[in-house]
Amino acid sequence: MKIGFIGLGRMGQGIARRLLDAGHDLVVYNRTAEKAAELCAAGARFAATTTLLCAEREVVITMLADDAALDSVVSGGLLQALPRGAIHMVMGTHGVAAIRALTALHAGAGQILVAAPVLGRPDVAAAGQLGIVAAGPADALKRCRPLFEVIGRRTFEAGAEPEGATAIKLANNFTLGCAIQAMSEAFALVAKHGVPPQVLYDVLTEGLFAAPAYKVYGQIIVDEAYDKPGFTSLLALKDADLALAAGGAARVPLPSVNALRDRLLGAIAHGDGEKDWAVIAREQARASGLK
Amino acid sequence: MKIGFIGLGRMGQGIARRLLDAGHDLVVYNRTAEKAAELCAAGARFAATTTLLCAEREVVITMLADDAALDSVVSGGLLQALPRGAIHMVMGTHGVAAIRALTALHAGAGQILVAAPVLGRPDVAAAGQLGIVAAGPADALKRCRPLFEVIGRRTFEAGAEPEGATAIKLANNFTLGCAIQAMSEAFALVAKHGVPPQVLYDVLTEGLFAAPAYKVYGQIIVDEAYDKPGFTSLLALKDADLALAAGGAARVPLPSVNALRDRLLGAIAHGDGEKDWAVIAREQARASGLK
Amino acid sequence: MKIGFIGLGRMGQGIARRLLDAGHDLVVYNRTAEKAAELCAAGARFAATTTLLCAEREVVITMLADDAALDSVVSGGLLQALPRGAIHMVMGTHGVAAIRALTALHAGAGQILVAAPVLGRPDVAAAGQLGIVAAGPADALKRCRPLFEVIGRRTFEAGAEPEGATAIKLANNFTLGCAIQAMSEAFALVAKHGVPPQVLYDVLTEGLFAAPAYKVYGQIIVDEAYDKPGFTSLLALKDADLALAAGGAARVPLPSVNALRDRLLGAIAHGDGEKDWAVIAREQARASGLK
Amino acid sequence: MKIGFIGLGRMGQGIARRLLDAGHDLVVYNRTAEKAAELCAAGARFAATTTLLCAEREVVITMLADDAALDSVVSGGLLQALPRGAIHMVMGTHGVAAIRALTALHAGAGQILVAAPVLGRPDVAAAGQLGIVAAGPADALKRCRPLFEVIGRRTFEAGAEPEGATAIKLANNFTLGCAIQAMSEAFALVAKHGVPPQVLYDVLTEGLFAAPAYKVYGQIIVDEAYDKPGFTSLLALKDADLALAAGGAARVPLPSVNALRDRLLGAIAHGDGEKDWAVIAREQARASGLK
Repeated sequence: MKIGFIGLGRMGQGIARRLLDAGHDLVVYNRTAEKAAELCAAGARFAATTTLLCAEREVVITMLADDAALDSVVSGGLLQALPRGAIHMVMGTHGVAAIRALTALHAGAGQILVAAPVLGRPDVAAAGQLGIVAAGPADALKRCRPLFEVIGRRTFEAGAEPEGATAIKLANNFTLGCAIQAMSEAFALVAKHGVPPQVLYDVLTEGLFAAPAYKVYGQIIVDEAYDKPGFTSLLALKDADLALAAGGAARVPLPSVNALRDRLLGAIAHGDGEKDWAVIAREQARASGLK
Repeated sequence: MKIGFIGLGRMGQGIARRLLDAGHDLVVYNRTAEKAAELCAAGARFAATTTLLCAEREVVITMLADDAALDSVVSGGLLQALPRGAIHMVMGTHGVAAIRALTALHAGAGQILVAAPVLGRPDVAAAGQLGIVAAGPADALKRCRPLFEVIGRRTFEAGAEPEGATAIKLANNFTLGCAIQAMSEAFALVAKHGVPPQVLYDVLTEGLFAAPAYKVYGQIIVDEAYDKPGFTSLLALKDADLALAAGGAARVPLPSVNALRDRLLGAIAHGDGEKDWAVIAREQARASGLK
Repeated sequence: MKIGFIGLGRMGQGIARRLLDAGHDLVVYNRTAEKAAELCAAGARFAATTTLLCAEREVVITMLADDAALDSVVSGGLLQALPRGAIHMVMGTHGVAAIRALTALHAGAGQILVAAPVLGRPDVAAAGQLGIVAAGPADALKRCRPLFEVIGRRTFEAGAEPEGATAIKLANNFTLGCAIQAMSEAFALVAKHGVPPQVLYDVLTEGLFAAPAYKVYGQIIVDEAYDKPGFTSLLALKDADLALAAGGAARVPLPSVNALRDRLLGAIAHGDGEKDWAVIAREQARASGLK
Repeated sequence: MKIGFIGLGRMGQGIARRLLDAGHDLVVYNRTAEKAAELCAAGARFAATTTLLCAEREVVITMLADDAALDSVVSGGLLQALPRGAIHMVMGTHGVAAIRALTALHAGAGQILVAAPVLGRPDVAAAGQLGIVAAGPADALKRCRPLFEVIGRRTFEAGAEPEGATAIKLANNFTLGCAIQAMSEAFALVAKHGVPPQVLYDVLTEGLFAAPAYKVYGQIIVDEAYDKPGFTSLLALKDADLALAAGGAARVPLPSVNALRDRLLGAIAHGDGEKDWAVIAREQARASGLK
């Protein structure tokens, strides 16, 4: 398939490489061109602008950091240059409002937006094992399926409205954040009763919570290993804000997300913005007079 | 070992039967005597009062519904009648303050309190597969180990202070409640975006949250199957209150537990007190204008 | 009128003195007898026990620190010794559950409970200018009116159920606490924007919030004058817990009170338990990385 | 002084008229021109575009509904046309981020931004009795003082950074919202105990809370008079979101504002978006099972 790919961060590179290796015709673009070096060595072509990239593409994929970057790419050429009938597959995590607005823009231009945010880290992306939450018009999803099969281990179809996929992605993220926050409260409570954190960790992860969310983040909390972030407090705040904005627009109060966001803010206020977001356990400890 | 057992609800019966079948000398007591019928048919003796029950026992186990029931049993005979040097093993879920006070009372009477709250439902208890969180003086724990081996699949030792086990049990319970509350918010958010709940369920439980907490309760929420409660909203409120009281005494703010408690209160206010506590998802939906 | 008075803290002494000066026949009791010295010099008699105090009294007033003290006095003699038809006027701040239970106990003994918690500090009590929130059977309230007139500037009648007065008193207290918490957030927000707190104080108290709640506590926050507490964080926590317990029993979620309680817990955890409860502004600042 | 005025809603008209009556040279602009009719009849001139309006103005005042409207006016001509050295006085309630960005834009163009959000309703504006919170460079504030004197009863100077005035305005608004929310909780609690709301109202407003915030909104709640909104739930949500965004950027958790926002969302979800924002008392009652 003729594919364009914009946004070659670590996630983007992994996904693009999968597509290239599967034999697709791939043109790539990144603001910092050097990040495309490896892909180009492997057969991808580099487009000097997003406008050039879009020419004759059936699908253009964006994997961008935030709404501002997406907006900049869209208004900077993509919307104008994407062929009629082509698909813009948005794989980054964006806000519901941004996706809704972009859906309308593309529809107005005779193009199709498919939202396809992913679940997993860069190494998972490189292995083609991402979870993909995909939403958009049924026939567009059908056209994307061969790509999904190359990129991920499983695709969760979330209906015809792209924003549905966005809502799921945000919900998945805050469910994780709230689990970390609840664990943080649990660890603070037992710490005040003199119990070593490892005991609570064992209790939680051996039974009801024998899942990566609790094992990975519980261990980070037990080890206070916040310095090699998989996901930073600042990025987590961005996602919490997107979730709360989605809740605001949809009139859904999210009290657990409020609790999460407040601890993230406290952690960032105390200088832990670039730490792994599980550092909210330290902020919870601080609020409990433990630090 | 010479064991007394007080409190033959469904959990208590399962545990007592395991001890009996393992060959221990078992005397039982229950306010409603008929619940002891099956155990007595299998070889246990029934004591007419808790005072009589305590005679010559090395360990007396209580598995009672709440602090009031425990207090009633303790002041109604157990404290006075339990032999010096004997162990009172408390397996029910109680408050930190109650356990702390009882620890002192027993110490004053030359007896030993071991807190050993359990993780698991009645069927798990009957199968001897409970998780046990045990805390108390090291030699007392050692003496209890043969019993733990009969009762549970694994014992988590939580130190010399009985209240440490209590704190862990409460923390485990509210971590679960907060997971259900976070899921409730997630389901409400995606529902407002027109996504079928099953899609979110699949996304959550296939990856980060592939654990019983999310699978069991997520499915209850998807099916709105609140009518056969494993654990009711009213019982969950009791546990949330115990957790918040523990947090209060230890000076640990628990904002996620606040969010959980508020939804439980709302659910109970709307008549769902005897429903499965996952019904907070319905209360969350109601607060979002969905019901 | 033949009046008994139990509980001669600063509030109690002020109220009792008003009654004495108005010519009532006053017998007093206090655990620490010496606090009665001044009243006895002015004509009151001291009873050696609460049982003796109750003899022939038409009204026995209690002004005690908490539910435990009230329970101790009631079960320690008052319930048994108070004449049939006599009134127990409870002026302390207690929990709804305690008042409800005591109402039933007195009814069972042919006595009458009137709840009459007060609004105001010791100096206001001494001046006979308290606000009184009174609830109980209509004829009992009528009998108490001459006393209310001596004690207070105004009586707010809250119906036939004593617990109604309790609910109002708790609601009044948490409305104040929530105002202080909201101000604390406001001061933290403007501090982060470099605005001197006095400017916010002036804005608030000149207009919408030109009332003692904001003027008194706003000034304490501006001056960080937490060392001469009018009401400590620890006492405020007790009241917040009473309010949340009342909300729990009545199935009323109180999210603003949760926020207040969490900051009180944080303040106490950081050693500010004996400071004026406006010190939650410092805790809020701490949570914002300002301290 | 040569003044331009953009934004002739009810507030804007009142303020503009004060300036006109004080003898200033006034050019006005409004998207819907007819709203300028009365002012023009009284001597103001109407500019066909904001660009034309700016010509030769010493001060251009904007009183616009939200950040989007402000952005539209600024980028639609004001930034380009405002003379070097002239002042853009922003009187609307905007976000901290918007004001910060605009401050930089004006500085880059050799212009000066003064933030001067106001406290008060349209009738207060018409009477020249607004409170004004003003921030900006000292000499600019000095130049604006004659205008402030015509517009308001009192000016609160909040420093050299315009965003400081914004922070104060947002803080004032959420302090009010949190007071209403706390009252809502108080009314729900006493309602569940059978106490008529008027009794609580009397208790609150006679003493600690004898101020407009509680008198005006308490009475609306007692009367359930939500149908003639002074300020709607939807507008209040906008302000709460601005406050939380400011808190987010400044790393200040605002838990009471979270509670407020969640009730606003619930109220709007239940169809009360265009009601007076005190309708959160009804939402609080609903969450308590009272409706």
